[in-house]
Amino acid sequence: MIVAMQDTATEEQIQHVIEHLVRMGFSVHRTTGERQTVLAAVGARIDFDIRNLEVLNGVQQVHRISEPYKLAGRGFRPDGTVIEFSNGLKIGADEVVVMAGPCSVESREQLFTVAELISKAGARVLRGGAFKPRSSPYSFQGMGEQGLKLLREAGDRFNMLVISEVMEISQIPLMLPYVDILQVGARNMLLKRGIAATLEELLLSAEYIMAGGNYDVILCERGIRTFETYTRNTLDISAIPIIKKLSHLPMTSDPSHGTGRRDKVAPMARASVAAGADALLIEVHHDPDKALSDGAQSLFPEQFRTLMDELRMIAPAVHRKIG
Amino acid sequence: MIVAMQDTATEEQIQHVIEHLVRMGFSVHRTTGERQTVLAAVGARIDFDIRNLEVLNGVQQVHRISEPYKLAGRGFRPDGTVIEFSNGLKIGADEVVVMAGPCSVESREQLFTVAELISKAGARVLRGGAFKPRSSPYSFQGMGEQGLKLLREAGDRFNMLVISEVMEISQIPLMLPYVDILQVGARNMLLKRGIAATLEELLLSAEYIMAGGNYDVILCERGIRTFETYTRNTLDISAIPIIKKLSHLPMTSDPSHGTGRRDKVAPMARASVAAGADALLIEVHHDPDKALSDGAQSLFPEQFRTLMDELRMIAPAVHRKIG
Amino acid sequence: MIVAMQDTATEEQIQHVIEHLVRMGFSVHRTTGERQTVLAAVGARIDFDIRNLEVLNGVQQVHRISEPYKLAGRGFRPDGTVIEFSNGLKIGADEVVVMAGPCSVESREQLFTVAELISKAGARVLRGGAFKPRSSPYSFQGMGEQGLKLLREAGDRFNMLVISEVMEISQIPLMLPYVDILQVGARNMLLKRGIAATLEELLLSAEYIMAGGNYDVILCERGIRTFETYTRNTLDISAIPIIKKLSHLPMTSDPSHGTGRRDKVAPMARASVAAGADALLIEVHHDPDKALSDGAQSLFPEQFRTLMDELRMIAPAVHRKIG
Amino acid sequence: MIVAMQDTATEEQIQHVIEHLVRMGFSVHRTTGERQTVLAAVGARIDFDIRNLEVLNGVQQVHRISEPYKLAGRGFRPDGTVIEFSNGLKIGADEVVVMAGPCSVESREQLFTVAELISKAGARVLRGGAFKPRSSPYSFQGMGEQGLKLLREAGDRFNMLVISEVMEISQIPLMLPYVDILQVGARNMLLKRGIAATLEELLLSAEYIMAGGNYDVILCERGIRTFETYTRNTLDISAIPIIKKLSHLPMTSDPSHGTGRRDKVAPMARASVAAGADALLIEVHHDPDKALSDGAQSLFPEQFRTLMDELRMIAPAVHRKIG
Repeated sequence: MIVAMQDTATEEQIQHVIEHLVRMGFSVHRTTGERQTVLAAVGARIDFDIRNLEVLNGVQQVHRISEPYKLAGRGFRPDGTVIEFSNGLKIGADEVVVMAGPCSVESREQLFTVAELISKAGARVLRGGAFKPRSSPYSFQGMGEQGLKLLREAGDRFNMLVISEVMEISQIPLMLPYVDILQVGARNMLLKRGIAATLEELLLSAEYIMAGGNYDVILCERGIRTFETYTRNTLDISAIPIIKKLSHLPMTSDPSHGTGRRDKVAPMARASVAAGADALLIEVHHDPDKALSDGAQSLFPEQFRTLMDELRMIAPAVHRKIG
Repeated sequence: MIVAMQDTATEEQIQHVIEHLVRMGFSVHRTTGERQTVLAAVGARIDFDIRNLEVLNGVQQVHRISEPYKLAGRGFRPDGTVIEFSNGLKIGADEVVVMAGPCSVESREQLFTVAELISKAGARVLRGGAFKPRSSPYSFQGMGEQGLKLLREAGDRFNMLVISEVMEISQIPLMLPYVDILQVGARNMLLKRGIAATLEELLLSAEYIMAGGNYDVILCERGIRTFETYTRNTLDISAIPIIKKLSHLPMTSDPSHGTGRRDKVAPMARASVAAGADALLIEVHHDPDKALSDGAQSLFPEQFRTLMDELRMIAPAVHRKIG
Repeated sequence: MIVAMQDTATEEQIQHVIEHLVRMGFSVHRTTGERQTVLAAVGARIDFDIRNLEVLNGVQQVHRISEPYKLAGRGFRPDGTVIEFSNGLKIGADEVVVMAGPCSVESREQLFTVAELISKAGARVLRGGAFKPRSSPYSFQGMGEQGLKLLREAGDRFNMLVISEVMEISQIPLMLPYVDILQVGARNMLLKRGIAATLEELLLSAEYIMAGGNYDVILCERGIRTFETYTRNTLDISAIPIIKKLSHLPMTSDPSHGTGRRDKVAPMARASVAAGADALLIEVHHDPDKALSDGAQSLFPEQFRTLMDELRMIAPAVHRKIG
Repeated sequence: MIVAMQDTATEEQIQHVIEHLVRMGFSVHRTTGERQTVLAAVGARIDFDIRNLEVLNGVQQVHRISEPYKLAGRGFRPDGTVIEFSNGLKIGADEVVVMAGPCSVESREQLFTVAELISKAGARVLRGGAFKPRSSPYSFQGMGEQGLKLLREAGDRFNMLVISEVMEISQIPLMLPYVDILQVGARNMLLKRGIAATLEELLLSAEYIMAGGNYDVILCERGIRTFETYTRNTLDISAIPIIKKLSHLPMTSDPSHGTGRRDKVAPMARASVAAGADALLIEVHHDPDKALSDGAQSLFPEQFRTLMDELRMIAPAVHRKIG
C-alpha cells in the first residue's frame, strides 16, 4: 500500500499514519522528498479498508498495490481454469459452449419442445428457471421443485447438462440432485456480475466462493446499469477481454438479460464471441409470444439456428469453435 | 397502456397487436390519424411486461399509463403514512427521527458507550449490525445473535428503539425478539434503495412487502453508483422530494453509507433534512480508528453532537423539529 | 402526445391542460375512463418540451408519441444511407470501411510511415488530429494547419481519404481544402456520441446538421461514461444494432477512444464488426511508446495487420467484407 | 508516481519501465520485496498520461501521487478565493449569493418584470440567456446581442450584477461590454461541471483558465447523468463539500438545470446551502407557463420569495447569511 501525504502534512501527522499502519501489521518504508512524504506499507494482509487511512489528517491519497483477491487472480492459474464435466464437456477450453433454453420452466411440453430444438442446433447446456422472484409481486413466480425435475429429465433425454439459478442458500440442497451448474444470480451478486458491480467486485465475489473451497467458478457478464434506457441494461462487452486478462476463470456472456430485447440478442451474442467469451447464455422459447416470463427477450427457434450458424463463422477468428 | 404504431405499420400488424392486447385482458380503443395509428388499452391488470408489445412488428412505442405499483403510491394514502411505535415515537410525523450507532456491534463496552452518547445527543433509534457479509471473505463478519442481544439491552437501557439489518429470510425469526425495525438491505434490494435501483424499482419493492400485508414500510436513500469515484456512491438527495411526492411512505437518508467518508457525512445529513427527509441513519463510534468495520464513515462523538445542533437549526425551515 | 391525468385530477385541472395543449397548436382527443382521464394531442409540431405539461397540476404522465427527429429516422430513408466519395469508396454499403492512423499528426516522417503501413493492411481512410485540445493545459496541443497539409499529402500518396476532427466552427474553412470527412467530436457532442449522450440525443444532433441541408452524416459510438473505471469509457456495442434499426445513417465504432487501452482495441474492433458496424476508427502508430498523444491506445503495426485478418474472417458472418 | 510491477515481471521488463520513466524526466526509486517490485518516480512534470505506463509488459498498476492540477488546488490558496466585484459584492465570503432570472431573455417587459421581483426578494446577480442552442433544431434560439443589452440595462436599473453564458470563443468580445460574469457552460465543459465530468476533470478545466492568467474562476454543480430518469439529471450535492475541500475556488449550485423540474428546485436549493454552497443559480419567470424555454424548471415569483425565506433560516446553521 502507498500512502501519499499532503505537502502541508506535519511530522506529527506523518507519525500518526505510520503508527496506524504498524498497528495494522504492515512494515513501513518512508521516502521524504522535496515537496512531500510518501509511505510504502508492505505486509501480508489483504482484508483492510483503505478508507481508514484516507480520512486521517494530512493524508492526500492511498493506493492499494496488491490486488484485493488472490485465488481468482490470473496469477493463481496462469494457463486459465478449464472446468470439465462428467460427460466430457469443457468450459474454458477451445469450444465456446452455448447454454440455451427458456427463461422459466412452464410445462413439460414447453420445456421438451425447446430442449429438443436447441440441442439439435448445437446447444450443450439446458437453462431454465424454476424459481422466479419478479420485480412485481403480481407476476408468475416459477414452478419450483417440479420445474427442477423437468429440467433434469429434459437434459438427460437430449444429452445436455443443466443450469438453473439459486435464489437463496436454503434452496441449494433442493437443487443439487437436479442441476449440473448452479447459477448464482445478479440479485445476490455472486457470480453473475451485478448490474452495478465493478469488475473488481465480481472477482471478489468469486474469491469468496473459492476461499470456501470450490474452485469451479464461472463468471458472467449480463449488463450494467447506465444512463441509456433504450435497452434494459448495457451489455459491457469489454468486460470479456478484461476478465480474461485479470483472472484465470472462464468468462461467459448473457445477451438475453444484457439487452432485454429479442432483436438485439443475436448481434450481442456475435460480439461476445468475437471479443473472446468462453460460453454464452441465451434464452430460447418455441412460442415467445406466450411465454410466462421474459418472452420479449427469448429467441424464436429459427433465430437461434441462424445465430448458431453465424457464431460458427466467427469463432475461428478467435481460434475457437462452436459445438 | 398506449401503443403507438409506426407510420409504415400494415393493417395486419395493427390487428395482430390488438389481438395480443385483448388476449392479455385489455379493452382497446383505436385512433387512426393522418400519419399513424395509436391504440389505448384499458384494464385492471398491472403485472404485464410492456416489452412483449415493444418487440411486435409495426410497433413504434409503448407507454404504461397506470403506475406499476398501487399500495405504495401516494394516492393510496394521500396524507402520508405515519408509523407509530409502542413507545410513542413516530416516523413520518413532525419530528425528523435520528437513528444512529456503530456500523457493527463489536462488544458490550463499545455498544453501551456509543448508545449512551448518541442517546444524550438526541438520537431516538439505536442502529448496529449483527451480521456483516463483507466484500472480502477475509474481513470481520459480525457477532451474530450475541450482537442482537446486546442491541436490545442497550436500546432498553437508554430508551431507544433498535434497528438492525436482515441478510436473508431465514434470519428473521432469530431477529424478531430483539429488533424494532428490520432493515432490509441494499444487498437484496428491498427497502433500502439498491445502488443501481431506480426510484420506481424501490417503490415496487415496497409494493411487494405491502402486498404481503405489512404496511409499515420505511424507505431509505443510501447512494447510487455513478461514474464519480471520489465518494463510494453518490447520495441522491433529490430522491427525497421525489419519493415524498410519489409515495405516502416515510423517506429517510443514510449519509454514512451514501458517502463512505466521515468528512462528508455532516454536510449530507444537513442537506437531507433541508430536502425534506423524515429520518436519518448515521454511523457513530466512540473510537472510529479502532472500529472493526466502516470506521472511515463513522462520526466521532463530538462531530455527532455538533451535527445534531446544526440539524436543530435547519429543521424549522422545513416545518420540522429534531428530537 | 399522450397526457395521462391523475386519478384525483379535477375537471378544472383537466380543462387547464386541454387549453394549454390547444394553445400549443394541438388537437385534443379526450378519453375518460372509470379511473382516469387520458388526453391524446395530435399535431404537426415536434419542437415542444414535454416537461411543460408534466409540471401542470393533476398531470400524472406525459408521453411523446412521434419521435423528436424525422430526417435522421429510419423512416426517412428505409433502405439506409450510402455515402459515396469521389474515389468510389462507399460507407454504409457492403464493405466495412476501416479508418486508421495516429492520434495526432506529429511529423512528416511519422505520418508517412503509419500511412503506408495501414494502407497496405487494407485501411481506406487516413485519420489524424491536427488540433488536440487536451484535458491538461500542460500537454502537446497539435500541429495545426501544417498537420492538415501533411494529412492531405499522405492520403493522396497512399490512395486513402482523409478524416480529421473539427474543434470549433471557425476552423471549418481552414479544414475544407484538406479533409474529406469532418469529424465532429465528442467535445462538442455532434456526430460522435458524447460520453453522456443517449442515442436519442445523438440522433437529434444528426437532425441538426441534416436540417441545415447536409445529409451525408455518419454516426460513431466511442464509449460512454459508466461506473466502471477499468477502461476509460465503456464502449457501448449495443448502440450499433440499435442505431441501425432506428436510423438510416451509417454507424461506426471507435474502439481506440472507447477503451483507451491498446490491449482491448482488437477484441472490441472484432465485436463491433460482429454487431454490424459500417466502419471502424482505429489509432495506429509505428512507435506508440514515443507518440505525443494517446500512445497507450495506439496499435503497433503488427497488431493492426493481425486485426485486419481477423476482421476479414468475421465480416462474412454479417454478410459484409473488409477492404 | 508509483508503478507496481506484477509478481511475475521479469528483470528485463522492470528495466524497460525504468528506462521509460527516466526518458520522461523522472528520477526512479526501486523497492524489491519478497513478492513484487515497486517503482517510485519523482519529478516536476504533471502533464504525462499514466496509461502509457499501464500498457507496458509486466506492469500491474500505476498511481499518480501528485494531483494533476496545482493552481486550482486548495494548497494554492489555503484560505479560499474570494471574488470581489466593483459594486462590493463578494462570492466566496460569508454571504451565500443568489443569482436568479429567466432561462432566456424574451422581451424587455419579461426581463424587467422578473428582474424587479427577484431583486426585491434578495437576489444579487441577474441571470438570463442571450444565445440558446437547443437540443432540437426546431426550437427558439435566443435574442442574441439585443438580449445582452437588455440584461445590462435591467441589471443596472435594479442594482444587480449580470451573468450570461458564452457558447463559443468568438462570442466573448460581443459579451464583455454587457456582462459581469461569463458563464462557461456544460456544453463545452469548462466551469460548469459537464454532465459526465468527474470532479477532477472540473478542476482541470479551471486549471486551464487559471494557467491562462485568469484566477477569478467560480465552479458550479449542475447535475450529472445517472441511470435515474425521473429528473433530467441527478444534482450531485456531495460535489459541494468535496470541491470545498479540494479547491480554494467558490462553489455554486444550479438546482434549476440540475433537476429540470420546478417542484424539485426549492428542496435542492435548500440542500445546497445546507451542504455549504457559496452561491446559487436559480431560474425565475413571472409567467413560466408562457416561457419560450425551460419554463418547466422556472420558479413562480411567489415560490422564489418563499424559498429565499427558507434559505435565510438555513444559512446560519453553516455560519453563512443570505442577502
